[in-house]
Amino acid sequence: MNYLNQEDTICAIATGGNMSAIAIIRISGNKAIKITNSIFNKDISNVKTHTIQYGNIINNKNVIDEVLISIYKKNKSFTGEESVEISCHGSLYIQNKIIQLLIEKGCRIANPGEFSMRAFKNGKIDLSQAESIEDLISSQSKKAHEIALKQLRGGFSNKLKNLRNQLIDFASLIELELDFSEEDVEFANKEQFENLVKLIKKELHLLIESFKLGNVIKNGISVAIIGAPNVGKSTLLNCLLNEEKAIVSEIAGTTRDIIEDKLNIEGFTFRFIDTAGIRKTSDTIENIGIKKTLDKAKNSHVILYLIEATSDIENQLKRLNKKSKEKTIIVVNKIDLKPKIKNNYKNVIFISAKNKVGIDSLKESLLNFVNMKNLSDNDNIITNLRHYNELKLTLKEINEIIKGLDNEMTGDFLSINIRQALFHLGSITGEVTTDDLLGNIFSKFCIGK
Amino acid sequence: MNYLNQEDTICAIATGGNMSAIAIIRISGNKAIKITNSIFNKDISNVKTHTIQYGNIINNKNVIDEVLISIYKKNKSFTGEESVEISCHGSLYIQNKIIQLLIEKGCRIANPGEFSMRAFKNGKIDLSQAESIEDLISSQSKKAHEIALKQLRGGFSNKLKNLRNQLIDFASLIELELDFSEEDVEFANKEQFENLVKLIKKELHLLIESFKLGNVIKNGISVAIIGAPNVGKSTLLNCLLNEEKAIVSEIAGTTRDIIEDKLNIEGFTFRFIDTAGIRKTSDTIENIGIKKTLDKAKNSHVILYLIEATSDIENQLKRLNKKSKEKTIIVVNKIDLKPKIKNNYKNVIFISAKNKVGIDSLKESLLNFVNMKNLSDNDNIITNLRHYNELKLTLKEINEIIKGLDNEMTGDFLSINIRQALFHLGSITGEVTTDDLLGNIFSKFCIGK
Repeated sequence: MNYLNQEDTICAIATGGNMSAIAIIRISGNKAIKITNSIFNKDISNVKTHTIQYGNIINNKNVIDEVLISIYKKNKSFTGEESVEISCHGSLYIQNKIIQLLIEKGCRIANPGEFSMRAFKNGKIDLSQAESIEDLISSQSKKAHEIALKQLRGGFSNKLKNLRNQLIDFASLIELELDFSEEDVEFANKEQFENLVKLIKKELHLLIESFKLGNVIKNGISVAIIGAPNVGKSTLLNCLLNEEKAIVSEIAGTTRDIIEDKLNIEGFTFRFIDTAGIRKTSDTIENIGIKKTLDKAKNSHVILYLIEATSDIENQLKRLNKKSKEKTIIVVNKIDLKPKIKNNYKNVIFISAKNKVGIDSLKESLLNFVNMKNLSDNDNIITNLRHYNELKLTLKEINEIIKGLDNEMTGDFLSINIRQALFHLGSITGEVTTDDLLGNIFSKFCIGK
Repeated sequence: MNYLNQEDTICAIATGGNMSAIAIIRISGNKAIKITNSIFNKDISNVKTHTIQYGNIINNKNVIDEVLISIYKKNKSFTGEESVEISCHGSLYIQNKIIQLLIEKGCRIANPGEFSMRAFKNGKIDLSQAESIEDLISSQSKKAHEIALKQLRGGFSNKLKNLRNQLIDFASLIELELDFSEEDVEFANKEQFENLVKLIKKELHLLIESFKLGNVIKNGISVAIIGAPNVGKSTLLNCLLNEEKAIVSEIAGTTRDIIEDKLNIEGFTFRFIDTAGIRKTSDTIENIGIKKTLDKAKNSHVILYLIEATSDIENQLKRLNKKSKEKTIIVVNKIDLKPKIKNNYKNVIFISAKNKVGIDSLKESLLNFVNMKNLSDNDNIITNLRHYNELKLTLKEINEIIKGLDNEMTGDFLSINIRQALFHLGSITGEVTTDDLLGNIFSKFCIGK
């Protein structure tokens, strides 16, 4: 895909391309207004920015639709370019017809993320902000949304840019020092430099550590509910999901399919993994079946090990896979049967999925388990694998620098690591980029953004 | 559903509620600006109509999203009410969160079509125009789109309103005549009245007749391809559909599923009915199988009877269902096999589905068959079953009036039929409505319109 031709005026349906009451078609580029004029029954050349014009889309004197047109002048738009948004009736026919007309008049269909990429190229947002837009759009939970929005609004990238600029200052001094090395002049204040590098290391550590959390927030926490047949796995899952569905269905337009196997607890997404497969095998040899499911579930973040509230609890617990113990929550179901059991177990949740008893404790336990309740609003959290990798590469260089300083290496040795650190830091916020990198990042965006 | 409380400020997602780059949330009612102010970081009370404000949606000091807000002042909006459109990032979370906030601040979720209904109630559009909006949104073919748009822009309703007003004038005179009947005064000019009634009858006839066409344009022309096994039904269907798909796939964002079994020929939609069922039965007794499919296809508008280009054509033609002859196009396939056949058949299309020969003739024949090629752009076409029924009821009354005039009935007899005619005519354009009628019409609309 050619993202590089910024001379093209691009267009795309920004509202999903499905049938709906209203659809928005976005146009951006030098000829946005000129091209719109060629299919609109009014001249919008001289209207003010951020105003709306009512009129008709025209093709050879035939009216295609009655629309509202929003005008954003150069430097006043999202992309920084002259931009137009056409708000038309959301029929498939009209949406496609208008796109067709725009192409005839000189627009090119925008590549995925091309509007965001232009916003980045024109300095309206930095690279990590641009990347957060896609995260924001695909966010399904409160926390994922909060993190994406925070990043869109600057987030950690301002801090990184600041640290990077300080590092650049030192790098310049060290380079200068190298030029004068024969004269044995010391421009760079070693102590200050050491402090800066250690500060950067600390920040990198925090951000890298945050990825573990950021990743589960972005992609959800995977939970495998396992247990013997008839222990109440489905009942528990339905119990958890129905409550959620009831909340969601209050809001019109919510696509319920999407949460089918997902549960939102206090803004975090938990993804429940289908362990239906266990039933077939467990019908024959129950024990092996459970072990198989445990194996299957080994990639999940959490395992809910569901057992029955019978006198047999001890035996059932013996079957627990020791290796997965760390991430296992033991759930004793069917306490409505009122069996005589000693409640002397630690970290065990007693529930009745049927009567919806103990479900809140279970949710609490899930939240505690992934240790996300104490998350501070001020913490910066990395959710992007690319950022994570670049941060780790930066940290590697920073550690080299610290080692070098300890060993009293000369500036010319340090400067290699400093340059590498600057490169990796800069590629996060987009101060250093390649076209390949940009193409790779933006091609994953959705159309119209 | 309570469509009647026009005091409520209503809100809805107007862009389908799916994940997309941008989503539009629509708000309309007396408190649209006041409620928006309560969740926006700027005061939009005094901004001009048709302007766009950039800012943040706020919930308890937390930013929910960065948005663009379009403001339409009272009498300047689609509904005629004070209106606001929020253009937000199209994540499900954000869309639902903003709707939730709006409800907390005093909005009510709009019922389907409620924005259009308010536009009607506030006199911005008449009832048949409002109904055309839904047709416009769901239109999938050029012709369906043209008719819906024409109706949105006034269409036949202006003509009907004009005729109705003339009829009202006469009705008043006749009612006046009745009051003075003992004095034997004649206010209404019988000849003029007779001319008007005949003119109305003529117009009603044209519109009623147009429904046959309007209905197939709106809902597509159903075509059953039938024939013996291996005669090339699938090849023909694929040949027709693939070409279409190639055209459609040039346009980004087109949902191909929708045209799966639909074909667009010169702006008209043809729906191909699956006759796969024929194969099973035809495997055993071919002849019966064909008859069964013919029976199945009896509800289709057109039957494509596909036979093989062998010397056996005469025999194959004998199997034709005589009853369906009127709507049957005989298609002789596999002419690529170059069999020796006499081409002395009328209304028979010779094709090679495999080599794509004769397909244009077939399309031509389909178009001719439904006689839509000579459709004038100026013709008014009824596509709405409700309008059709009301027009027929009006015509019935008009015929009664004509009969009454012929029999020199007195005004008091005529006035009953005139009133009924006025009632039915008026219910098309919405001059006469009941709340039940409105609820029934608008509940079929999509959300946000």
